[in-house]
Amino acid sequence: MKKLAIGIDIGGTNTAIGIVDEAGNVLVKGGIETPTHGDAVRYVNDLTDALREMERSVALLNPDSEIIGIGIGAPNANYYSGTIEHAANLSFKGVVMLVDMLRKKFTRYAHIVLTNDANAAAVGEMIYGGAKGMKNFVMYTLGTGVGSGVVVNGDLVYGSDGFAGEIGHTTLFPDGRRCGCGGVGHLETYCSASGMKRTAFELLVYYNDNNSALANVPYNKLTAKMIYDAAIKGDKIAIEVFEKTGYYLGIGFADTAHYLSPEAIFLFGGPVAAGDLIFKPTIEAMERHLLPTFRNKIQVLPSKLHAGDAAIVGASAMVWKEAEKI
Amino acid sequence: MKKLAIGIDIGGTNTAIGIVDEAGNVLVKGGIETPTHGDAVRYVNDLTDALREMERSVALLNPDSEIIGIGIGAPNANYYSGTIEHAANLSFKGVVMLVDMLRKKFTRYAHIVLTNDANAAAVGEMIYGGAKGMKNFVMYTLGTGVGSGVVVNGDLVYGSDGFAGEIGHTTLFPDGRRCGCGGVGHLETYCSASGMKRTAFELLVYYNDNNSALANVPYNKLTAKMIYDAAIKGDKIAIEVFEKTGYYLGIGFADTAHYLSPEAIFLFGGPVAAGDLIFKPTIEAMERHLLPTFRNKIQVLPSKLHAGDAAIVGASAMVWKEAEKI
Repeated sequence: MKKLAIGIDIGGTNTAIGIVDEAGNVLVKGGIETPTHGDAVRYVNDLTDALREMERSVALLNPDSEIIGIGIGAPNANYYSGTIEHAANLSFKGVVMLVDMLRKKFTRYAHIVLTNDANAAAVGEMIYGGAKGMKNFVMYTLGTGVGSGVVVNGDLVYGSDGFAGEIGHTTLFPDGRRCGCGGVGHLETYCSASGMKRTAFELLVYYNDNNSALANVPYNKLTAKMIYDAAIKGDKIAIEVFEKTGYYLGIGFADTAHYLSPEAIFLFGGPVAAGDLIFKPTIEAMERHLLPTFRNKIQVLPSKLHAGDAAIVGASAMVWKEAEKI
Repeated sequence: MKKLAIGIDIGGTNTAIGIVDEAGNVLVKGGIETPTHGDAVRYVNDLTDALREMERSVALLNPDSEIIGIGIGAPNANYYSGTIEHAANLSFKGVVMLVDMLRKKFTRYAHIVLTNDANAAAVGEMIYGGAKGMKNFVMYTLGTGVGSGVVVNGDLVYGSDGFAGEIGHTTLFPDGRRCGCGGVGHLETYCSASGMKRTAFELLVYYNDNNSALANVPYNKLTAKMIYDAAIKGDKIAIEVFEKTGYYLGIGFADTAHYLSPEAIFLFGGPVAAGDLIFKPTIEAMERHLLPTFRNKIQVLPSKLHAGDAAIVGASAMVWKEAEKI
């Protein structure tokens, strides 16, 4: 009997669904819209219909298979309570008891688990990716924000209330940039995609550079991808954006090392494709900011999760992790 | 049979030794000088003699007792390997295999464990103090430096190499003060005793204040205790030192919350005696720097370990913690 797990990634616009085997292969893939109507009951009904449909097709394709659980990655998700709480990017108000609601629909599944997307990515890395066999590592996900998942002694750290691992909202510069959360100087304001944009404009302002390609793009239009494209063409401002982003990230990584002494720190998300452009300054800054005890010990690695499927694959990994505990 | 544990605290000048019961009472107390001769073999022999002596006296006083192990707190101590490695404040060069050396002397003890002093304080708090029953908390020790011990899921976090929990060397201001370790802007440079002194002189410089009592003390003579004494007499500079120290510490605590979501953060060391003078600005700054999810949840508490015995009591607690694991 081949065991399978369902992975669900609830994003602001779409809910991606995959049925994944123990090697991390996605056998069936689909999705529904994440609703804007704010009605969690209706959403869970729609989600259930989509899942039933996919269960049928996977059973047809793999008659000797058995689905053992559902793993869900979602913003503001709480592992302990199985709830999504006050998620600013979703239309649901207050607390959605998602795991309880799904348990009533899928009574035969031993494991239905929910966590935030960065935690799911960390578990995905541990089950299918580059962190196999590692007991202590940290996952940074760079995107719209900076997410993180912390693994200590082989387990994800949820903390006392289920919300641990918000490294993106630790303070890098106490008098620094405004953060979307209302805070100031958070790592996320420097190392997210919009953090890179802010750094680009800060450098344009500083150098008053007319030659950079970035000087021809309005603030609202500049993307991390455009900065990358300019950097590989030799644009000085764009190259310095990567250097600075690496410098900021490296300080964050050194802090992480001093907290947790991990074997490795993994990077996931768009900037990872930039390779040395981001890894080199990050590793340099990290090493420079480490106590001697920690130097030349901590691996900084790109995630091995396949970018397109990472969210559902990561979510599905939660199921295998849960099954291990029994 | 009453079970007892030996606690040893290896400091730069003295090695304090206590024999402690399961309630944290110190039954016998003593010590030897921490040598300046750098000869680890000779030191372990002297330590063994002192321990044998104390074993005899505790056996006389408590005939129905049994010592089950030795817990040691020391700078640059590695729990995994039982070694003290390149400790700048001790005369031993390189790596001292302390646990192995003691195991040969005390073969009948089931547990001989070594960790750094802040980790030992954290375990002490968990076994005897205010963290009883807590699964996720962090201990900050304020003194010459800023030490920390991190507890996740009921266990101390040692990380991949045994050196986790160096929060004092995370970066608070990337362009800030020089740290004794060679780094820049570390939390320790703001929140240790000498950090408070540096803040005092920074404020004297800023206000050019002639009226403050602190303006009459040379840089090399000003202590945290003198700042405290001036603050309770209403000295404005001294009061602002506590406010600023709390502000710095509160940012550190908020970072800790975002990493680990602990139930509580404990403070140990001299400044704890200052009560509200330090706790109030610390808690205010922490709350202001927290994501909404974490607000009004995390307790900031003074350590309940008795200051005079805390180091040996904390070290002895390592033995009970170790015994639990079997």
